[in-house]
Amino acid sequence: MTLPLEATGTAETYHQVERFYARQMQLLDDGAVDKWAGTFTEDGVFAANAYPEPVSGRASIASAARSAVAELARKKIVRRHWLGMLTVDPRPDGTIGTRCYALVISTPEGGPSSVQVSTVCEDVLVSEDGDYLVRERRVTRDDIR
Amino acid sequence: MTLPLEATGTAETYHQVERFYARQMQLLDDGAVDKWAGTFTEDGVFAANAYPEPVSGRASIASAARSAVAELARKKIVRRHWLGMLTVDPRPDGTIGTRCYALVISTPEGGPSSVQVSTVCEDVLVSEDGDYLVRERRVTRDDIR
Amino acid sequence: MTLPLEATGTAETYHQVERFYARQMQLLDDGAVDKWAGTFTEDGVFAANAYPEPVSGRASIASAARSAVAELARKKIVRRHWLGMLTVDPRPDGTIGTRCYALVISTPEGGPSSVQVSTVCEDVLVSEDGDYLVRERRVTRDDIR
Repeated sequence: MTLPLEATGTAETYHQVERFYARQMQLLDDGAVDKWAGTFTEDGVFAANAYPEPVSGRASIASAARSAVAELARKKIVRRHWLGMLTVDPRPDGTIGTRCYALVISTPEGGPSSVQVSTVCEDVLVSEDGDYLVRERRVTRDDIR
Repeated sequence: MTLPLEATGTAETYHQVERFYARQMQLLDDGAVDKWAGTFTEDGVFAANAYPEPVSGRASIASAARSAVAELARKKIVRRHWLGMLTVDPRPDGTIGTRCYALVISTPEGGPSSVQVSTVCEDVLVSEDGDYLVRERRVTRDDIR
Repeated sequence: MTLPLEATGTAETYHQVERFYARQMQLLDDGAVDKWAGTFTEDGVFAANAYPEPVSGRASIASAARSAVAELARKKIVRRHWLGMLTVDPRPDGTIGTRCYALVISTPEGGPSSVQVSTVCEDVLVSEDGDYLVRERRVTRDDIR
């Protein structure tokens, strides 16, 4: 029972996006801030309803992440980003719109682990040099209305 | 190292099912009740160990979902359904049996988020007009024995 | 927008690994200890920062799992293993290195469910008789430093 509507190209794109995100989340949670920031375009924008204004540019995105990683290290908290329920929407202009859920699982030394925040993550991805990059990210925390 | 037992058709089916579920969960959590109910067959059945009896028919499934969405809105709770650990079993009659885990992540205004329930979801899917539809769903909550 | 770097063989391997893990987790959580242990090689090793030393050999791995399943039954706790953010690294020697996050969701009778532990799981997989087997597993709990 294979669905005729399913284009192979779209299926491949979907899975490449899934794998891109797995790598991207591992980089951030491992504290590999520069490599993680390298998954955004040079002019990438990271917006969130938890921020007063969007963070613009790879360097600023890296800087914000570095501060967050340093604070977690100081508090001895391990953070894990989980993405799921991903939908992928390739657009006529060659970009890819994505929407998924993202959880942050937080674990202090000695535990217990907990769901720190539940969010929706909406990206615009572009292809550069054979890999994806995030040009725009918008993260909406479920607890902030 | 590619496994000979893996039929391409089965792999495609698996991923189409994954993507079907991602869309289906987003629709429900966005409160798009009619579109969500449209992912069940007209005679679809939704059974759960939390219900006194199964809900039968797309209209009744939509109605039950509408009530739940309204109650969440009243309580200002955002709900996210996460599916994972999916196994897919295409059957000789053309239907597809699936089994997966499902979490409901619940977030009141101001937080904190928490795992509201952990469940196992077992579906019978059918193909109609180039898309999947749920003909039977059975949700078993882990807290109810 | 399909990435040229993406070899089809690698994509197939990735998805076969995903599905292997879904089956493997369901087996363990269903208490099918022997079938679960059968997803390790005869000389498989299960190491964890929560264990004083690695558990070696399929029989010992089965035995440890059997004890854990019995204890959960006694406490009337349902346990679900969730894997996510999987990266897959096929190696020149034919083995596959994997890294993913793993959550244990724990639910006592009557609830509530909670994230019992958050971990990172690193495996070395081998192919035998048309299926994957775990030759080495290393589980690192985020709460134990």
